[in-house]
Amino acid sequence: MTLDIIGQTQDVLASIDRLLGEVGSDKTKILTAQIFLPDMADFAAMNTVWERWVVPGHAPARATVEAKLANPSYRIEILSSPRSRGPPCRAPSSSRSPS
Amino acid sequence: MTLDIIGQTQDVLASIDRLLGEVGSDKTKILTAQIFLPDMADFAAMNTVWERWVVPGHAPARATVEAKLANPSYRIEILSSPRSRGPPCRAPSSSRSPS
Amino acid sequence: MTLDIIGQTQDVLASIDRLLGEVGSDKTKILTAQIFLPDMADFAAMNTVWERWVVPGHAPARATVEAKLANPSYRIEILSSPRSRGPPCRAPSSSRSPS
Repeated sequence: MTLDIIGQTQDVLASIDRLLGEVGSDKTKILTAQIFLPDMADFAAMNTVWERWVVPGHAPARATVEAKLANPSYRIEILSSPRSRGPPCRAPSSSRSPS
Repeated sequence: MTLDIIGQTQDVLASIDRLLGEVGSDKTKILTAQIFLPDMADFAAMNTVWERWVVPGHAPARATVEAKLANPSYRIEILSSPRSRGPPCRAPSSSRSPS
Repeated sequence: MTLDIIGQTQDVLASIDRLLGEVGSDKTKILTAQIFLPDMADFAAMNTVWERWVVPGHAPARATVEAKLANPSYRIEILSSPRSRGPPCRAPSSSRSPS
């Protein structure tokens, strides 16, 4: 993957949208989002993409910290927790399936 | 912000209480708490404040790790996941809204 | 604790199983798992244990990042979020209770 932080953030958020959609949920129903950046210098660029993606009034609690990721080509990883809706619901979203 | 780790931890936990209160929840209903410290040397002081705050028998699962935060003046960040209560509930708590 | 990454991962996952069992849940009902490794070189070994443990089709969203842990003898920490099941349910799992 050779996308920069803008492209990778867009890809990751699109993955989250898709995963949520597969279980009948959507981004307005995420409770928390944990964002990891290997380089905190990417924070501002990541944040501009995030701000365009999030629905005002329905933003999840978010924490962004710097951490080395399993795959050195990744510039971002997001672990989000959906609101669960009882027994039939499973809609967690990790942007990076193998890590 | 010039508070030390004691003061910042108190502030962060007060924010979580307030956010939970706004949605009719409270600290006995948190499932998980992810704590990030830029300097693990702050662990013991953070923990004394945490121990006074938590309700025995209702402590969330907690993990504390060292990680650089987005804002260099922050000495602690907590991302907590509330127990969800079905469709009307949204009560996640991040201690640091812009990060 | 002198277990290597294989042994520690097995221990941690056994703890999660036990904690979930105590509240009438199990590993097929975890939504997210946040894995922290002080040394990302342990990733492959950790992953082999994880792959044997997880139930196909019921794997939680997972993110693995490198971070220093509170206890220097720990080689892994996992914070997992169970699916909540309404008011009587509390089944979060942290592999490391004091951190």
